[in-house]
Amino acid sequence: MSTNVINVFCQLNYTIVEPTSFVFSIAPAKTDFQQLQQEALTVTPYTPVEWVDIGDYGSRLIRFQAQPGTLTVEYRASVQLMPVLMPAAPLEEIQFSALSADILPYLNPSRYCESDRLGRFAFKEFGQLPMGYARVQAVADWVYHNIDYLPGSTDASSGACDVLIQRAGVCRDFAHLSIAFCRALGIPARYVAGYAPELNPPDFHGFFEAYLGDKWYLFDATKLAPVSGFVRIGTGRDAADASFATLVGEAAMDSMVVSAATASGESLPDNGGAVSSATQ
Amino acid sequence: MSTNVINVFCQLNYTIVEPTSFVFSIAPAKTDFQQLQQEALTVTPYTPVEWVDIGDYGSRLIRFQAQPGTLTVEYRASVQLMPVLMPAAPLEEIQFSALSADILPYLNPSRYCESDRLGRFAFKEFGQLPMGYARVQAVADWVYHNIDYLPGSTDASSGACDVLIQRAGVCRDFAHLSIAFCRALGIPARYVAGYAPELNPPDFHGFFEAYLGDKWYLFDATKLAPVSGFVRIGTGRDAADASFATLVGEAAMDSMVVSAATASGESLPDNGGAVSSATQ
Amino acid sequence: MSTNVINVFCQLNYTIVEPTSFVFSIAPAKTDFQQLQQEALTVTPYTPVEWVDIGDYGSRLIRFQAQPGTLTVEYRASVQLMPVLMPAAPLEEIQFSALSADILPYLNPSRYCESDRLGRFAFKEFGQLPMGYARVQAVADWVYHNIDYLPGSTDASSGACDVLIQRAGVCRDFAHLSIAFCRALGIPARYVAGYAPELNPPDFHGFFEAYLGDKWYLFDATKLAPVSGFVRIGTGRDAADASFATLVGEAAMDSMVVSAATASGESLPDNGGAVSSATQ
Amino acid sequence: MSTNVINVFCQLNYTIVEPTSFVFSIAPAKTDFQQLQQEALTVTPYTPVEWVDIGDYGSRLIRFQAQPGTLTVEYRASVQLMPVLMPAAPLEEIQFSALSADILPYLNPSRYCESDRLGRFAFKEFGQLPMGYARVQAVADWVYHNIDYLPGSTDASSGACDVLIQRAGVCRDFAHLSIAFCRALGIPARYVAGYAPELNPPDFHGFFEAYLGDKWYLFDATKLAPVSGFVRIGTGRDAADASFATLVGEAAMDSMVVSAATASGESLPDNGGAVSSATQ
Repeated sequence: MSTNVINVFCQLNYTIVEPTSFVFSIAPAKTDFQQLQQEALTVTPYTPVEWVDIGDYGSRLIRFQAQPGTLTVEYRASVQLMPVLMPAAPLEEIQFSALSADILPYLNPSRYCESDRLGRFAFKEFGQLPMGYARVQAVADWVYHNIDYLPGSTDASSGACDVLIQRAGVCRDFAHLSIAFCRALGIPARYVAGYAPELNPPDFHGFFEAYLGDKWYLFDATKLAPVSGFVRIGTGRDAADASFATLVGEAAMDSMVVSAATASGESLPDNGGAVSSATQ
Repeated sequence: MSTNVINVFCQLNYTIVEPTSFVFSIAPAKTDFQQLQQEALTVTPYTPVEWVDIGDYGSRLIRFQAQPGTLTVEYRASVQLMPVLMPAAPLEEIQFSALSADILPYLNPSRYCESDRLGRFAFKEFGQLPMGYARVQAVADWVYHNIDYLPGSTDASSGACDVLIQRAGVCRDFAHLSIAFCRALGIPARYVAGYAPELNPPDFHGFFEAYLGDKWYLFDATKLAPVSGFVRIGTGRDAADASFATLVGEAAMDSMVVSAATASGESLPDNGGAVSSATQ
Repeated sequence: MSTNVINVFCQLNYTIVEPTSFVFSIAPAKTDFQQLQQEALTVTPYTPVEWVDIGDYGSRLIRFQAQPGTLTVEYRASVQLMPVLMPAAPLEEIQFSALSADILPYLNPSRYCESDRLGRFAFKEFGQLPMGYARVQAVADWVYHNIDYLPGSTDASSGACDVLIQRAGVCRDFAHLSIAFCRALGIPARYVAGYAPELNPPDFHGFFEAYLGDKWYLFDATKLAPVSGFVRIGTGRDAADASFATLVGEAAMDSMVVSAATASGESLPDNGGAVSSATQ
Repeated sequence: MSTNVINVFCQLNYTIVEPTSFVFSIAPAKTDFQQLQQEALTVTPYTPVEWVDIGDYGSRLIRFQAQPGTLTVEYRASVQLMPVLMPAAPLEEIQFSALSADILPYLNPSRYCESDRLGRFAFKEFGQLPMGYARVQAVADWVYHNIDYLPGSTDASSGACDVLIQRAGVCRDFAHLSIAFCRALGIPARYVAGYAPELNPPDFHGFFEAYLGDKWYLFDATKLAPVSGFVRIGTGRDAADASFATLVGEAAMDSMVVSAATASGESLPDNGGAVSSATQ
């Protein structure tokens, strides 16, 4: 077990036109693999907030009503990561007949991961590869090599099939396409939103997990940041379940600052194994 | 509380080409609103099966491995329904800021319910209507009046947007489009697969639930069968979560028989209120 | 016959990164219904251009190679319009069996007008209406009333089905959806790009023509400008055939100015009839 | 010049429910490269037909009205092919700036060839290849190797992007995807419908042409039949322009027989060059 402390920060600035309900998913989840040493949330002007636990993976939403005017949400935390590093080679795909019931939904297609349409594509590209961790890594590598990382090339309605056609996307698209391929191959996969040190430019990050052996393992098809430094915020079927901000009302985001870095200031080592940081 | 006993039956016949893993979702869920008086499952040739509880709504999967040859799965049960009938008028939509965390995911777009793309459509058609139960009923009525029930017009990859464009679909499509509209309006909605008496021709049925007040209420945009007689099998975000049969291997379905009827042989009365039969 | 002189102008500014081939479709077509009194094209820095006649409707392309640096293309013309005004009521739809061969392709679906997918939608909305000019006008009115004119809501890959789902678009989208409905109804329809006086803000405009009786008649579902003042540039199956600028190379548009106005400075009268200004 | 005589035949059987207008595109085009030695059309019951010349490539439509009852359309012809065989190596792609105006529309995206969405895909796969005939052949080879020929995998609304996602299709889909790639690369390409000897099972065939040097050359990504034996019926932007049968009314096709074979009974030699059989 390696231990790392990551300092995360975000500041989100809005102009509120009409009374607006916000839900922010910006605080790290509380899991066995990441502990909050400290956190601080400031909403300006002062607004009482509700912290809402959601889902089975320790995620916490911040919910409140904002009145017309300007709004600044600032969050910072120090998170101790305790990812489990495993030798990758022995991690096996689990047969459909042996998957536990709570894992099965992560084989289903979702809004942005249309695995039902990609069965033939996935089997043509990855069907003959050795099964297990290496095959999921091959999926992520394929996405890395075949899709251009191109900010602005996709929007909120783009799914894995769109990304595959246009061969461009951003982190969430890389994750969606990887997830869709995994599910098409019969490998449970899900989306994770979080913070990632060494991301340049800094931003929230989207990556994915695949279920191998009896755990979820982290993967990042963008190769933009070391997986062992990822801080989990939200977990879901795809990005539809893990938006950083959801609002009902009328408001415009004016600017956003995100940062994440090791407390030590040192770069994270590139470990040679599989990283599991999921709660089950 | 009304009580009704519904007898359900299905027989599914396959030719298995290679060893195949099956998961069937054909047994009624065990909930506070429906109790099994008796059930019987026969797999021919004899095959040991695993019953798997899944999800939070009492659903049960039947899982087993089948060997090459013919396969017949026959299931029958008597289910006592205890739906709660409520006066519809007072049932209100719950504000985004007041929804409990476990309900929030049912506002998210899903594979077959692309609510993120239908916001303007939904608000143009339903935005000015009185909120609450009546608005959900208006959505279901709109779908009923604007979409043709046309077997064969859609396939397993058809989503709500496809159905809206082509103005035709089957029960699952009617449910998907209704769900997508509800979510776009800020009303949590989800898919239910089940048995329905008086369906002609008999088949499995797909319908939907919307969350109003503090409960889930049943709706059926097809108007093909009385809601108070619906027997819940699976519950999910959309039909991707509630397939009657999922298989990994190589097998072909040869034929299927489904039936559902009141034990009394009488027709179900058309009640004048809202029907809740969900577990929470 | 009414006569109107329209002064049109456009200025397009580019930064050329690598040698780039341009084709501009910005000069009014020469047809029996519009005559050029004068026109002037200035390309800065000076570049020899080729004028290319294209298609059967008098359209003319401007083609040249541009070298790295800045590029300004400025075009102005005075165009005398001689649209034929017809009483709308007697204009009939022509039966499929009586359409001449050169009209038949305008019944086929095209890139942005997926009429093959919209048959049921079109017949549900317009199938019971009296046939003829009034039905095409009903199509345009429906689009006007049901689609929001919203700059930025669509992009170069948006087709009629996308526009119908999201209920928003710009002039080209209004035309595409109208064309798709017409074709689905068996009425030949095509896209026209041009200049339009009284457009606010001024821009190029996209509208459509339907074939009735033995002529093409102009329609504009945006109702943003009087049809009798439209100056035809390009004619095609949809906007794919009538781009204002096509380029092969690497260049970025920095700014664009478009204007069109009656030479007299007076507003165009709203005539009460159908307007034909097509050449065929 | 090689000369080959191909005997073609088709029989189409319908049940007409209501008076129906038919247009059949089943007769070989009359071009410089294929001459009809004889042809015979029989419509049963006897119905007067209209032969309609359409387009610039010698195509001829057969149009008539059919009354309720059964309908059989039988067509046979002997066609002398005079394809021009050219050495493939010297055939060059023509720069955008040098293409003649009548060729330009074949660079535009069309209903089933969404080349506008496939630019990055095309350049990633084919952008670095030597330009000219070999690059078009590489496109056709890529489609052949990456798409499964699978009857029933697509329908009348499937476009090149659908085919690319699902990696399966039939002859028209192979042509559409090839055309879309060519156009995305800046190579004019179009669809051809026709007869092809040695097709097994016999059927109408769909293939494509690319414009190289100063002529159109035939390609077939399915590799199901020798190109030098192809008999052109219709030519268009995609299959939307070249349906074998179009009807307005209500009728159902009951059965269809198609055949094509060399008059000599011998197989066609596999020539080693490029085949041009287009009229311009």
